[in-house]
Amino acid sequence: MDNVLKIARLAKEASIKALSLSKKVKNHALLKIADLLSENKDLIFEANALDLKNAKELLNSGKISNSMYNRLKLDENKLRDMIQGVRDVAALPEPVNKILWSRKIADNITLKKVSCPIGVIAVIFEARPDVISQISSLSIKSSNALILKGGSEAENTNSAIFNIINSALKQFSEFPLNLLNLIHTRDDVNSLLKADEYVNLIIPRGSNNLVKYIKENTKIPVLGHSDGICHIYIDEYADIDKTIKICVDSKCQYPSACNSVETIIINKSRLNDILPKLFFTLIQNGVEILADERILKIFPNIKKADENDWKTEYSDKKVSVKVVDNIDEAINHINKFGSGHTDCIVTENKKNAEKFMELVDSSGVYHNISTRFADGFRYGFGAEVGISTNKTHARGPVGLDGLTIYKYKLFGNGDIVDDFVKGKRKFNKQL
Amino acid sequence: MDNVLKIARLAKEASIKALSLSKKVKNHALLKIADLLSENKDLIFEANALDLKNAKELLNSGKISNSMYNRLKLDENKLRDMIQGVRDVAALPEPVNKILWSRKIADNITLKKVSCPIGVIAVIFEARPDVISQISSLSIKSSNALILKGGSEAENTNSAIFNIINSALKQFSEFPLNLLNLIHTRDDVNSLLKADEYVNLIIPRGSNNLVKYIKENTKIPVLGHSDGICHIYIDEYADIDKTIKICVDSKCQYPSACNSVETIIINKSRLNDILPKLFFTLIQNGVEILADERILKIFPNIKKADENDWKTEYSDKKVSVKVVDNIDEAINHINKFGSGHTDCIVTENKKNAEKFMELVDSSGVYHNISTRFADGFRYGFGAEVGISTNKTHARGPVGLDGLTIYKYKLFGNGDIVDDFVKGKRKFNKQL
Repeated sequence: MDNVLKIARLAKEASIKALSLSKKVKNHALLKIADLLSENKDLIFEANALDLKNAKELLNSGKISNSMYNRLKLDENKLRDMIQGVRDVAALPEPVNKILWSRKIADNITLKKVSCPIGVIAVIFEARPDVISQISSLSIKSSNALILKGGSEAENTNSAIFNIINSALKQFSEFPLNLLNLIHTRDDVNSLLKADEYVNLIIPRGSNNLVKYIKENTKIPVLGHSDGICHIYIDEYADIDKTIKICVDSKCQYPSACNSVETIIINKSRLNDILPKLFFTLIQNGVEILADERILKIFPNIKKADENDWKTEYSDKKVSVKVVDNIDEAINHINKFGSGHTDCIVTENKKNAEKFMELVDSSGVYHNISTRFADGFRYGFGAEVGISTNKTHARGPVGLDGLTIYKYKLFGNGDIVDDFVKGKRKFNKQL
Repeated sequence: MDNVLKIARLAKEASIKALSLSKKVKNHALLKIADLLSENKDLIFEANALDLKNAKELLNSGKISNSMYNRLKLDENKLRDMIQGVRDVAALPEPVNKILWSRKIADNITLKKVSCPIGVIAVIFEARPDVISQISSLSIKSSNALILKGGSEAENTNSAIFNIINSALKQFSEFPLNLLNLIHTRDDVNSLLKADEYVNLIIPRGSNNLVKYIKENTKIPVLGHSDGICHIYIDEYADIDKTIKICVDSKCQYPSACNSVETIIINKSRLNDILPKLFFTLIQNGVEILADERILKIFPNIKKADENDWKTEYSDKKVSVKVVDNIDEAINHINKFGSGHTDCIVTENKKNAEKFMELVDSSGVYHNISTRFADGFRYGFGAEVGISTNKTHARGPVGLDGLTIYKYKLFGNGDIVDDFVKGKRKFNKQL
């Protein structure tokens, strides 16, 4: 049997055993993980130094970017946040075995909808070693088994953190073996994608190409987003100061984030007052602007945006700008070219805000607020598995809830359907 | 452009327009559909007579089964139930635009999680013409666009019902064109499976082979169950009378249903008292029994069950029986060979019931009650889209909830992330 397939099969077995993990032992284990990460930080930094040394060569030969090199680097601050993140997950409410509702469907027959783990979750992420402790904590908290694949650049750091986490779990006899697993190569990932018999959900966190590749090569449900093409629509009734603040924050606060704005749409009635001020401020902030023909008539020195720009996630200090005649045109543009991630209207008109938020078919629809708020921590979820643009299971920033599903528990006393079919008994009206 | 792809694209456009459908107009339309189905019942019966005539030939030449022929046949009773079903859906609570929760994530910033339609749903079903009105009503109620493909045997009946439903919608100018769509051939289905750009969810209702074929040939999320291998475990502490009642109902009440029992597992301590009585009653009810070797030693005339039987959905008056030493062995057997559909423990021991219901990884886990209760109507959902053995999105009997997802609405007043990153403002603690 293929090695990864074997790992997946054993993870499946572990996921069944994990169904009986108590809230208490899970939280104890999480705190033990935090302690051991703290006690063994020298080991982690040593491993990270090794990865950084290798990455430096890749950086010098242009094979990885500066920002990737920076993401790879762990320092005292990042490690402290990482450890605090594990403690925060321990403090979150228990996500499984929650009674979501309970009802009497007939005399003496009670139906309970109860939250439970999904089973085996696979997470494929790129060079950010803090992801491994975050995802592991969320998995443990939700009693799921986990298969992790990190970026090869962070191989040593990932292994060091993974081994510390696993050594913490080994101190608790209640934890099944093989609950957390680390795989290493691209071949491993390709085997994993075929393990649909055992793996219940794949979460890719990384580049568009990674996510697209995974979606195209597996039958396992995939949770993620391949693009983050976010919009801001400046309405006829927009407040000028709010507009400027929101646009600058949405583009400049962290341009490579998936929730940064890529296209600003402006109502034709605001070309004279808002547009010049907006352009001036964006350019002051080092943003490159591409605009449609209507804008070029006013600002002939701006670069021209073509249809391809409406579909592009720049992930950089670059933004495309388009004029519309009315709010409907803006909504249509967003639904046509957007990626269903996060889109904002700036307006003082409540009706327009409501219309926009109802008709824009995105996971986040915002009124007078920066698109950069689309984030599990900011939403108060305590931690985030990732952001989903799926239309099923989980949408938007996904916290612990996205790692759970439910089962129905039905309690009777020798009850049979035949009595109901023959009219001897009746179901309760639920409406 | 391929015709079905065009239908899917137009359905996607309709699904966006449907986001603004009000509760009132949807319920009016549903009642109008019920009225028109009632007024035009002669048209439906004529179309059904044509299908039955064609099916009779297929029946005589052995190409379709008797039960399929019977399912195809509409009579006054079935039509009345079908129409009542549409009225029942109108009476259900509004499933979309529900505020699932609302919280202040920081001063003056409010986050609302709001239910919304999924978008475009495709349902592929076999020869049961009453499905078309049920699924159409659920789709309309949840503001989704729909692409339907019925069994070719019911082509005329399906078209008649579909046309009546669509003519009702046309009386309401609020309804977008192309909200409901009917496709016809296997080639159409194959095109549909490729329309992942437009279709958000596929629900196959039919044979195992149909469901498996669809799962293997599309990137679109699939909601359904390919097998219904349900178990009853007769525990050491089972009550004998309840056991007999539950086993007979679970097997005989409707043997071809997906929620009927296929394997009965019995604790070794109950071979002398329960087993003979159970076998006697099952055989009296015309059930064929296959059993493992331990049972053959006591009842040498029973047929032998092999490992293949543990994986078989008989869909017939046939059951396999297995002996276990203890409850853990029963749980392991069910998790290994079951299909995650519905499994029951018969016991008077509360601890064993709890253990079974926690550790059996199925969408329905039952205590002292027939597996035949696994059904959306019986659960009080008003109507059912189907039963899912998925571990994501929706599990078990799926009602209107399974046709919705949610979006996040965020309300601010010019708020930016930079203020929070720089420590000028703080998020509220949500725990």
